[in-house]
Amino acid sequence: MNRAVLLLLAAGAAYAQTAAPTPPKPIVSPEVHSDNTATFRLRAPNAQAVNLSLEGAKAAPMQKDEAGIWTYTSPVLAPDIYGYSFNIDGVGMMDPNNSLMKANLLNNSSAVHIPGEGLPWEIRDIPHGEVHHHFYKSGVVGDERDYYVYTPPGYEKSAKRYPVLYLLHGYSDDASGWSAVGRANIILDNLIADGKAKPMIVVMPLGYGAPEVVSRGRMDQGKFRVNQTKFADVLLTETIPQVENEYRAEKRRDMRAIAGLSMGGSESLFTGLNNLDKFAYVGSFSAGGLGEDYDVLFPKLDQSANKELKLLWIACGTEDRLIDTNRKFRDMLSAKYVRFTPIETPGMHTWMVWRRNLATLAPLLFQ
Amino acid sequence: MNRAVLLLLAAGAAYAQTAAPTPPKPIVSPEVHSDNTATFRLRAPNAQAVNLSLEGAKAAPMQKDEAGIWTYTSPVLAPDIYGYSFNIDGVGMMDPNNSLMKANLLNNSSAVHIPGEGLPWEIRDIPHGEVHHHFYKSGVVGDERDYYVYTPPGYEKSAKRYPVLYLLHGYSDDASGWSAVGRANIILDNLIADGKAKPMIVVMPLGYGAPEVVSRGRMDQGKFRVNQTKFADVLLTETIPQVENEYRAEKRRDMRAIAGLSMGGSESLFTGLNNLDKFAYVGSFSAGGLGEDYDVLFPKLDQSANKELKLLWIACGTEDRLIDTNRKFRDMLSAKYVRFTPIETPGMHTWMVWRRNLATLAPLLFQ
Repeated sequence: MNRAVLLLLAAGAAYAQTAAPTPPKPIVSPEVHSDNTATFRLRAPNAQAVNLSLEGAKAAPMQKDEAGIWTYTSPVLAPDIYGYSFNIDGVGMMDPNNSLMKANLLNNSSAVHIPGEGLPWEIRDIPHGEVHHHFYKSGVVGDERDYYVYTPPGYEKSAKRYPVLYLLHGYSDDASGWSAVGRANIILDNLIADGKAKPMIVVMPLGYGAPEVVSRGRMDQGKFRVNQTKFADVLLTETIPQVENEYRAEKRRDMRAIAGLSMGGSESLFTGLNNLDKFAYVGSFSAGGLGEDYDVLFPKLDQSANKELKLLWIACGTEDRLIDTNRKFRDMLSAKYVRFTPIETPGMHTWMVWRRNLATLAPLLFQ
Repeated sequence: MNRAVLLLLAAGAAYAQTAAPTPPKPIVSPEVHSDNTATFRLRAPNAQAVNLSLEGAKAAPMQKDEAGIWTYTSPVLAPDIYGYSFNIDGVGMMDPNNSLMKANLLNNSSAVHIPGEGLPWEIRDIPHGEVHHHFYKSGVVGDERDYYVYTPPGYEKSAKRYPVLYLLHGYSDDASGWSAVGRANIILDNLIADGKAKPMIVVMPLGYGAPEVVSRGRMDQGKFRVNQTKFADVLLTETIPQVENEYRAEKRRDMRAIAGLSMGGSESLFTGLNNLDKFAYVGSFSAGGLGEDYDVLFPKLDQSANKELKLLWIACGTEDRLIDTNRKFRDMLSAKYVRFTPIETPGMHTWMVWRRNLATLAPLLFQ
């Protein structure tokens, strides 16, 4: 292989041929050290100020060296997966040297993984399930859309039926959120291998009944309500029938659960509590956007729901600005004598909370 | 829903709580116009110079307005999917306002889609196949790794066996390359719906036998060769047996094809031509990194291969710097009287070429 070939391949980017200058010494960012600190680097010789925004921490100024490389080394970080971005002279940017990304329809960011043994989202040498990506045209919405389905280890070679968790992402995520960022498949693999969760199918649909709800700038509450209502319609009339047609899914209500995060938490409460003939387990993680006109949202909800609900699980981080609306929702349930499990954990409105929520909730399902 | 909740949801990013200032007016980038021009925008008030690097075009300077927003509107673009990035004062960056990304282990970029009716990668209202994501620990390499499998429309409800194309990505891509960027599943859906390609399974493995080959800076030819050899080992002893154990795959050599792009083109030639008892169809798109010590690479290759090969398909773009090494490889085949189909198309070393290569090759397989 001649040198020209080597260099072209190393350049990698498909249109590297038009980019004239040879790039300078490669930059490693982030670099995770053995003591669980991490160094972030960015070459930006002309920038005046660069900050690092790391999930859960205040923006930290980076320091420039004589080569124009900005650096910041974090304190010791608890093992976890942290989103981050650079703020370069006031402009938020992903780390151009890091392929680990958190894709999002409105807010892309980079991510850094501080490994930690025994954490529920760490990949282990155990049997792994599969993640299936489905595509179809929605009759309700009229768009071409997708959903993901996790099948547990052994599904392919078994003949038995499995219970199903419908697991919903948050506002501005897409259908890949729970597998790509939330690592739901890895979390389930681990729980199942340890005998902590029942083998189950997990369906991760696109969480929009009115996709135009996702837009930059001020949100429209009316659109949000339409989105929630039509999402329930898509789930009940399209997603569930398709899944139950193709997969060996248990079809009894006590073998069906619905849970989700943020907007998906509200969708789970709205869809689940209004369709107790379909779901015996309902979970919400940091629910947001539900609204507080509870009598309109849940016209039939009363203590008779206790006969139907095997579990109503309502979690929120105590540092989440949504903690108050979540407590208010729980107060409404209490006033109606509807039983639920209240969960308050440390944490803000972040995937760091939601991965733990899933790892805590999944073992309670279908037992 | 109160206003604080609305704003928090709109902020979207999990750690928005720590980012103090309210963001300014949202930016739309890219904006594709009805005349197939596209406007790219970036808010960077303090930058001195911002260029747009659009796939297939020279770097174009962007213009700053009084609000600090840089803008560039392209000429009319042929319908396609173009990678691009911003160069901000010498630093390559993805577009922070665009969720359509080309993930890559070394070179992330953004992408803009100019839709065009009838193009093979456009999603149409036709039956869609599924993409299955598999995870396992490799005994050959020792890592936890993944591969993707496309099954055609109707696979789930049929009992028949299908031919299999093993489709390999390029250097610095990961296993998701062919589905996420190459849109292989959409291309196959379209060809199958139009009766142009046989329904087939497409397996898209991780293309590294020695993953350490992927590194920034100068590439090492020795590592590249080890990678190629161990990749063949992984494919033959792990991927193919797993696929044939789980899927209804035809197991005859004339029902198996191997093809790939760039590094994956070289892997297809190396693995395919050295294992004609396993593959009757071999394709390479813009092959790179193979080496020119052909007698070492293909010790047994001679015209007896013509009895085995149903198709040896060797494509390269005429503006690709690898065109000469591809012609040299073809000359070697000619000198040995090994028959092949030479394909030269317009284009450089880009996915714009490779999507078309797949759309052209797939109809020739298993006929």
